[in-house]
Amino acid sequence: MLIVMELTATPDQIHHVVRQVENRGYTAKKIPGGERVSIGVLNNKGAVEKALFMGLSGVKEVIPVTRAYKQVSREFQPEDTVITVGDAVFADGHFPIIAGPCAIESVEQALTIAQAVRAAGAVLFRGGAYKPRTSPYSFQGMGLDGLKILAKVREKTGLAVTTEVMDLETFDAVEEHADILQIGTRNMQNFSLLKRAGKARKPIMLKRGMAATIDEWLMAAEYILAGGNTQVILCERGVRTFVNHSRNTLDISAIPVVQKESHLPIIIDPSHAAGRRDQVLQLSRAAAAAEANGIMVEVHHDPDNAASDGAQSLYPEQFEILCRQVRAVFCSYEHTGA
Amino acid sequence: MLIVMELTATPDQIHHVVRQVENRGYTAKKIPGGERVSIGVLNNKGAVEKALFMGLSGVKEVIPVTRAYKQVSREFQPEDTVITVGDAVFADGHFPIIAGPCAIESVEQALTIAQAVRAAGAVLFRGGAYKPRTSPYSFQGMGLDGLKILAKVREKTGLAVTTEVMDLETFDAVEEHADILQIGTRNMQNFSLLKRAGKARKPIMLKRGMAATIDEWLMAAEYILAGGNTQVILCERGVRTFVNHSRNTLDISAIPVVQKESHLPIIIDPSHAAGRRDQVLQLSRAAAAAEANGIMVEVHHDPDNAASDGAQSLYPEQFEILCRQVRAVFCSYEHTGA
Amino acid sequence: MLIVMELTATPDQIHHVVRQVENRGYTAKKIPGGERVSIGVLNNKGAVEKALFMGLSGVKEVIPVTRAYKQVSREFQPEDTVITVGDAVFADGHFPIIAGPCAIESVEQALTIAQAVRAAGAVLFRGGAYKPRTSPYSFQGMGLDGLKILAKVREKTGLAVTTEVMDLETFDAVEEHADILQIGTRNMQNFSLLKRAGKARKPIMLKRGMAATIDEWLMAAEYILAGGNTQVILCERGVRTFVNHSRNTLDISAIPVVQKESHLPIIIDPSHAAGRRDQVLQLSRAAAAAEANGIMVEVHHDPDNAASDGAQSLYPEQFEILCRQVRAVFCSYEHTGA
Amino acid sequence: MLIVMELTATPDQIHHVVRQVENRGYTAKKIPGGERVSIGVLNNKGAVEKALFMGLSGVKEVIPVTRAYKQVSREFQPEDTVITVGDAVFADGHFPIIAGPCAIESVEQALTIAQAVRAAGAVLFRGGAYKPRTSPYSFQGMGLDGLKILAKVREKTGLAVTTEVMDLETFDAVEEHADILQIGTRNMQNFSLLKRAGKARKPIMLKRGMAATIDEWLMAAEYILAGGNTQVILCERGVRTFVNHSRNTLDISAIPVVQKESHLPIIIDPSHAAGRRDQVLQLSRAAAAAEANGIMVEVHHDPDNAASDGAQSLYPEQFEILCRQVRAVFCSYEHTGA
Repeated sequence: MLIVMELTATPDQIHHVVRQVENRGYTAKKIPGGERVSIGVLNNKGAVEKALFMGLSGVKEVIPVTRAYKQVSREFQPEDTVITVGDAVFADGHFPIIAGPCAIESVEQALTIAQAVRAAGAVLFRGGAYKPRTSPYSFQGMGLDGLKILAKVREKTGLAVTTEVMDLETFDAVEEHADILQIGTRNMQNFSLLKRAGKARKPIMLKRGMAATIDEWLMAAEYILAGGNTQVILCERGVRTFVNHSRNTLDISAIPVVQKESHLPIIIDPSHAAGRRDQVLQLSRAAAAAEANGIMVEVHHDPDNAASDGAQSLYPEQFEILCRQVRAVFCSYEHTGA
Repeated sequence: MLIVMELTATPDQIHHVVRQVENRGYTAKKIPGGERVSIGVLNNKGAVEKALFMGLSGVKEVIPVTRAYKQVSREFQPEDTVITVGDAVFADGHFPIIAGPCAIESVEQALTIAQAVRAAGAVLFRGGAYKPRTSPYSFQGMGLDGLKILAKVREKTGLAVTTEVMDLETFDAVEEHADILQIGTRNMQNFSLLKRAGKARKPIMLKRGMAATIDEWLMAAEYILAGGNTQVILCERGVRTFVNHSRNTLDISAIPVVQKESHLPIIIDPSHAAGRRDQVLQLSRAAAAAEANGIMVEVHHDPDNAASDGAQSLYPEQFEILCRQVRAVFCSYEHTGA
Repeated sequence: MLIVMELTATPDQIHHVVRQVENRGYTAKKIPGGERVSIGVLNNKGAVEKALFMGLSGVKEVIPVTRAYKQVSREFQPEDTVITVGDAVFADGHFPIIAGPCAIESVEQALTIAQAVRAAGAVLFRGGAYKPRTSPYSFQGMGLDGLKILAKVREKTGLAVTTEVMDLETFDAVEEHADILQIGTRNMQNFSLLKRAGKARKPIMLKRGMAATIDEWLMAAEYILAGGNTQVILCERGVRTFVNHSRNTLDISAIPVVQKESHLPIIIDPSHAAGRRDQVLQLSRAAAAAEANGIMVEVHHDPDNAASDGAQSLYPEQFEILCRQVRAVFCSYEHTGA
Repeated sequence: MLIVMELTATPDQIHHVVRQVENRGYTAKKIPGGERVSIGVLNNKGAVEKALFMGLSGVKEVIPVTRAYKQVSREFQPEDTVITVGDAVFADGHFPIIAGPCAIESVEQALTIAQAVRAAGAVLFRGGAYKPRTSPYSFQGMGLDGLKILAKVREKTGLAVTTEVMDLETFDAVEEHADILQIGTRNMQNFSLLKRAGKARKPIMLKRGMAATIDEWLMAAEYILAGGNTQVILCERGVRTFVNHSRNTLDISAIPVVQKESHLPIIIDPSHAAGRRDQVLQLSRAAAAAEANGIMVEVHHDPDNAASDGAQSLYPEQFEILCRQVRAVFCSYEHTGA
């Protein structure tokens, strides 16, 4: 951390800052510049909180240098974390495709879609049982019955299944029925939930918060690793910006940045990024081209009558084309990953 | 809701859309324009989900008209909701000032600050017991011991107290000890928590999500009202934008917009918006000038040694000036509110 | 356009709005809903300005339906505009790669880089002669001498050349020397410049403004077409968001949206989106996968000593890999475009 | 500037960075931390370009310390720049109110509004002659005839006048007729225009770009000061964010930040920030409460029939209330400014 003093900072102010740094147990190193003094904060284990020094008098700016995350960092673990769930392998040169409806609506719906997406090439089935909905008056998901349908899908199709977990009360049930537990964008910084996920025996798919920086996202993952669960898959699903032609703005740069900073796999959710069917194919191919570690796509056999998010769900025949094209793209260039 | 068809939409496509609207139980009304057909969706109770029609073929755009929220709406209840907690009155021409440290650190710290802010004019005491922290390695709050200190502050100073509630597990304890329960920005769409808040017997202060639209924020409040708790205070605390000179960007327009759309009171948290002490006074006066229903300010008697967020905490003597100036501003113009 | 009235709107207010619509020369059509009245505005040629009606009393909201652009619209011209410049073909199944340094620094520098990028597969050379720089104290480009070097590059290598035009005073000179004229992100709504570009006899590459919606971008292009120049190439170069790990956030969705709304070709500038070398390859492949109509990449043979933007310039050997991979990606899937 | 090396940086890489720093004419100072090496860049006159070092191998991050602006900085000139135009004084404890229509439409319109706003307390008249319009088909302003009307308004009412200048071609005419020249948000980084403004003999009002950081805004002002014109008034008019209930998001924090960083006055344009009449009063009072150096407000005597932006224009009677309330707010607290 670098503490930059005002041009007009007095020796007393500088001295006070140095003392504060030392009081917190760090080493302070004065760096006299041409015009102003800066103070380096050294020998810190982990990140130092910026707020500790920003308000001291004579301080112009405080510039963090060390990242606050540890276990998720590639500096901590240089080799990729490879996560295997059923037939899906995240990282290690694979590109698993997860697919299924926004919400589980019935056994028939789930099985119909699961068989279609498996035939097209999906290796994991997704489907919401507990649904976070903006409106209290919208369909909130089938709950436990939905979880049981997911288990039946796995039994009948052999596909592993993933679904969202929303709270501590239903965590055990979701952990029992699903193979990967999703933590949604609205819960990325639900720290109580993250702590529980750190105790889970199943991999966690951690979606990026709607307006989270990569630092904040990795810190959220750090909560899970710090709790003892090292099986975390990051999922970029678009961020909120001024742009209004897609529901969110897919941040493609997040792929190389996360892969450089962290050893955890990162997948893309093009359906929630786009919010509309007619952008999903292009975003999916872009994800494959940017060397993401997989994608998760919404598919529905009858989207016009879907219980939720029909507008962004692909028809099975569109999904088939998507699978073919996405694989072709992913295989067309030499990979740099482990 | 208005469904705008493509210029090239065929009569069959138009007919299919009309049928879909009617299948969902609404009335469809064709509106032939000069160039293209639009279809109005009428006789809906509450909002219609845009996604239901956006993916139909021949549809160019779907434009929602009715808001999805009901009970929070001023069309539902024209007169202001006035919430009284101890000496604080939210709405009805009052401007209560809530103040206290970011986190409760000890009985002495809490009482020292509480006495100082009460003397300056605060009518409610704030202090975190359970702290949502970006890093799992940061101080997470004193928990139940913190709640007990809050109760002691109330007993000794007569100030009502407010603190954040983070999850279902600790909800009962917070509800027992605090007079107003805060739901933080990261939990604005933690729907399980919102449902529990709807059953609480205490007022809820609902902070705006970091990247929430006002519609989403009011929908989150709707969850609480729909659960039976009509005592909701909205709290604007800045939103995330590209701007980097303050921690968040305070959205002053939210005040008139919320007051027009809803009957619920809205207060401002200038400390979290700014993220640094030297903007708090200006933002607080701006809040008073824009006719907010109160503010909540972080104050610490020894911010250099605070356990968290010291950089944005005011010194007691700065807070005294703030109280004086903010009241002067609030009283200087004729109010338009109820 | 749809004018939505307040629930409480009086017959007089509704009548006044209808009269205002008719005074402006349009047809007003009342649409009684279950709860409130809306008024459709019909028989407008082109878009109606929202502001004309939004302030009338009793009006809750004004919702535009028709887009304001005409000639750039795919409804106006269904088939793709194909632009050919030297060996580069924008649209029609091609994927031209434009490459070169940020700024022209000398004949030797320009020729060295031009030969390298031509050998790797670039079909157009870029290089700034007039440079828009944030600081008045930064290198402002070689000006006319830079233009002459560009002409020499074309003569020696056979590559067509593109460079930025910044103002009316230097427009003629740039038009004389360059094959494609770039209008930069900071000038996207410099309407005087756009009008002059409408009179130019060379194709214009119109970069998206840093915070422009696609509507605004297409309206800027409309200025050029309305002036008589139909040769416009749109260039997405990232938009400004809260995200801080890349200089801008590349908006991949802009590709399918622009291609749906407009007949103009759209290319991607991954270098300015990323702002750093180590994301350029991934973004370039993503652009090819999303079926952009080309890319423009910064390359420098000695970026450590470049006069500007060295950090985002690729080394020639990196560019060679990029060309190979990007072409492989572009050819790996079936195209949907014309 | 601080160059942070990777944990894995080799001595050779560190040595190469040091050499590059020295080649550029600066002093390099190695700062060994607990874990990694950082390199301070010292003895730079003015800011160092981040891009020069960010791409070097072994470099993790480059953190600028010194601001790039000089003459606009309060470190360069500690006392406020006070700008006096007619009866308006920007800074020095004053709060001038500028008012008038979006566009000049006729002599009668301009005089009617000018007399009304003068009576209410405005000290400067605004009105567009050359209008930057998103659409080429919208009213583009009266041009030179508009300028002449402005001159007539000054003659008849005694009010000084301000209007926008859009390009080099019409600069002389605007400079001749207006007392303050506005550079609009879309031209904030039109560097050719800024250079010409540096030669102007009239004060310049520089509006903040729609997505400009304060650094970029002050750098744009630096262009004008570097050209020789020290009379610059900054105008905050809202920035583009995800928020959609106002046309832009007014950044109130910009006031204290600019006043801390720079000696130039800063005023607020609440009309363009809001984009709708019913937020203007609240934003204006907030500006006064945050100690801005003035405001500029759109007023029209017949906004329903205005040629542009009617929805955000106040009626004269609303403006009268605004003037009264804004002055009351501004006078209600002790000022900290010079």
